[in-house]
Amino acid sequence: MRAGEIIDRCRTLAVLSEIPDGLLRTFLSPPMRQLHGLLREWMEAAGMRTAIDAAGNLRGLYPSSAETPRRLLIGSHVDTVPYAGAFDGVLGVLLAIALVDALGGRRLPFSIEVVAFSDEEGIRFGAPFLGSRALAGALDAALLGRRDADGISVEEAIRAFGLDPAALPEARLSRGVFAYIEFHIEQGPVLESLGLPLGVVTSIAGLSRLSVTFRGQANHAGTTPMHLRRDALAAAARWISLVDRYARATPRLAATVGALDVRPGAANIIPGEVRASLDVRHPDDAVRQRSTAVLLDDARRIAARCGVAAEWQSHVDLAATACDPWLVAALGRAVSAAGYPVHRMPSGAGHDAMILAWRIPAAMLFLRSPGGISHHPDETVHAADVEAALAAGAALLADLEQRQA
Amino acid sequence: MRAGEIIDRCRTLAVLSEIPDGLLRTFLSPPMRQLHGLLREWMEAAGMRTAIDAAGNLRGLYPSSAETPRRLLIGSHVDTVPYAGAFDGVLGVLLAIALVDALGGRRLPFSIEVVAFSDEEGIRFGAPFLGSRALAGALDAALLGRRDADGISVEEAIRAFGLDPAALPEARLSRGVFAYIEFHIEQGPVLESLGLPLGVVTSIAGLSRLSVTFRGQANHAGTTPMHLRRDALAAAARWISLVDRYARATPRLAATVGALDVRPGAANIIPGEVRASLDVRHPDDAVRQRSTAVLLDDARRIAARCGVAAEWQSHVDLAATACDPWLVAALGRAVSAAGYPVHRMPSGAGHDAMILAWRIPAAMLFLRSPGGISHHPDETVHAADVEAALAAGAALLADLEQRQA
Repeated sequence: MRAGEIIDRCRTLAVLSEIPDGLLRTFLSPPMRQLHGLLREWMEAAGMRTAIDAAGNLRGLYPSSAETPRRLLIGSHVDTVPYAGAFDGVLGVLLAIALVDALGGRRLPFSIEVVAFSDEEGIRFGAPFLGSRALAGALDAALLGRRDADGISVEEAIRAFGLDPAALPEARLSRGVFAYIEFHIEQGPVLESLGLPLGVVTSIAGLSRLSVTFRGQANHAGTTPMHLRRDALAAAARWISLVDRYARATPRLAATVGALDVRPGAANIIPGEVRASLDVRHPDDAVRQRSTAVLLDDARRIAARCGVAAEWQSHVDLAATACDPWLVAALGRAVSAAGYPVHRMPSGAGHDAMILAWRIPAAMLFLRSPGGISHHPDETVHAADVEAALAAGAALLADLEQRQA
Repeated sequence: MRAGEIIDRCRTLAVLSEIPDGLLRTFLSPPMRQLHGLLREWMEAAGMRTAIDAAGNLRGLYPSSAETPRRLLIGSHVDTVPYAGAFDGVLGVLLAIALVDALGGRRLPFSIEVVAFSDEEGIRFGAPFLGSRALAGALDAALLGRRDADGISVEEAIRAFGLDPAALPEARLSRGVFAYIEFHIEQGPVLESLGLPLGVVTSIAGLSRLSVTFRGQANHAGTTPMHLRRDALAAAARWISLVDRYARATPRLAATVGALDVRPGAANIIPGEVRASLDVRHPDDAVRQRSTAVLLDDARRIAARCGVAAEWQSHVDLAATACDPWLVAALGRAVSAAGYPVHRMPSGAGHDAMILAWRIPAAMLFLRSPGGISHHPDETVHAADVEAALAAGAALLADLEQRQA
């Protein structure tokens, strides 16, 4: 399979959406079921046996040459953000299928399992990595009880999809899995700025994600004098400006308010309540945690000055994760063997590889993101870079085959 | 009918809502049809003939003692903001019905028409006063073509409710209508601060309402360095802070950003587009227009500094309106005759009386708002103040009867 077909398949899957005017596909949504149908066909055509585990991950197993528990996992996620591009996550799954397909039925001394994770973005339940957490045995009762905007819990969503939460333990990594490899678009501008198709990921930045709520007093916009207002949005706006300024002044810090819910949300009513998301990332966990504490302290201070209350809730607090040094070296050799320069780089974005790294050696290969654009309909990928990733992936399998034979 | 019953009726109508966790009743929504059913019963029990005009206004006619075109209109609106209180608008309609009911079938030398306007808040179509505009002959093609969030136009909404847009000319004020009176809660803190139950409105502040859109570039929150971002929300937040500061520094100016739509609106995506409402009011039209121009200029300037584009659209630009001096004097005599102090005051909020004043003499009587709270579920009214309004209304009818006999 060539790059053109892989890109076509990504574009085909991007049609499967919950919204009419763009791509949104969340955990166990109806379009995810449609996607499973197509992916199963493609996995089976490449010689895999397929199954959907209790967390909604689609898993395709390509057997080994001889009976052995040794297994290589290659995967990425198939859920998306709202108004997403066609390549974030899905490309990694299709590259994995293409690598298996390219074996043409030839068996390796280990089995390969391709995993299409059901949730990495965390859009539906405000908690990311539900899919990979199931493999790591970390989809706990607190997460299963989380509810979406319609009041449906993770556990109920699993049942509604026709799956059985009691079978979650069977979704865990089996004992013989020796490595996890993930292909993913960079989602940033670094590789493009260097003129390189591929990047070997050495570490994944830590991530704090919280929601901050400002509570004031809703009132009539025409009759409430400015000095008597307790405007939750005026307070939130001051804080959002400060988050932006603080992050710009702190080297390598990324801090983002991406979602904002303003209530009641009418032109002629002073906002009584604003709920903001806060996403903080830094390669150094200490800097990330200190910055998060400063920003929350500022929220409380600014709110108080506006006669508004501020409170927050932490949803994600993930430590920075180093990729496995041996796998990083193997990926470097594979990129080099395929004829491309080896560039080692950290990942600013979180990935399923972070979660898998809790249990097994994990590493990632990035593909250049044209324009650095991701989480946007304009997100794309160069066909030549997909060819490069295919060649590097084939070289990695050959390297692993040789060392494990 | 006593104040207690009027308040009970308001609370009964507040149950008729589009949302489960509060009161929202927009133009020609299903709960508005339920409300029409109850109001018709109550109007007919008070001796009125009822009909719904082509703009969805419910109109009850109480005939005069002798054949005459002379007619007094008393009305207010029955649509609401999201998470509204039970008294904004509806109380004025129920007071009007109670005043007719109190006549006990006795005819006056003019007919009385009670009007329950279908839209004053403008929530569904982002354009207020659709109901009263129909009476003023100002529900034009541009307004009829406006679309709600579901893409339904005003004209289509009228048809879907079983009404005929071709009959809109029949909704206009008939030639003999000599005055419009509106009872309404103050929705502000002034009467309470003075310890007064009633206020005679002398003028209604002008109103500018716009939407301001900030367009940047959506991108991944983890991989896009701060200095490469074009964050539409960071720009909007700076501007919202400035709107608040500017209004606080400008005497008698009220400027509010009440609604904000952030896209794509996920925690891990830099906002690419933000649409904000802007509501500006001032008793002096020149100050209102100059302030609006300054704030829009600031939006463009701040956006440019953030690498973001700003553009806007004007939805409402209504001049300040003086109430009719003769009616203001008559209302003052009525309040005094009922035994209450006469306090004359401007209205910061827009009201249907503004629109009717384009065509006929119009005036308003305010009832005290406890805590100054409105557009909020805690909005309420004192029973004693409702009694005061009933007494003043009866005195006004007696005064008009005497002068027209």
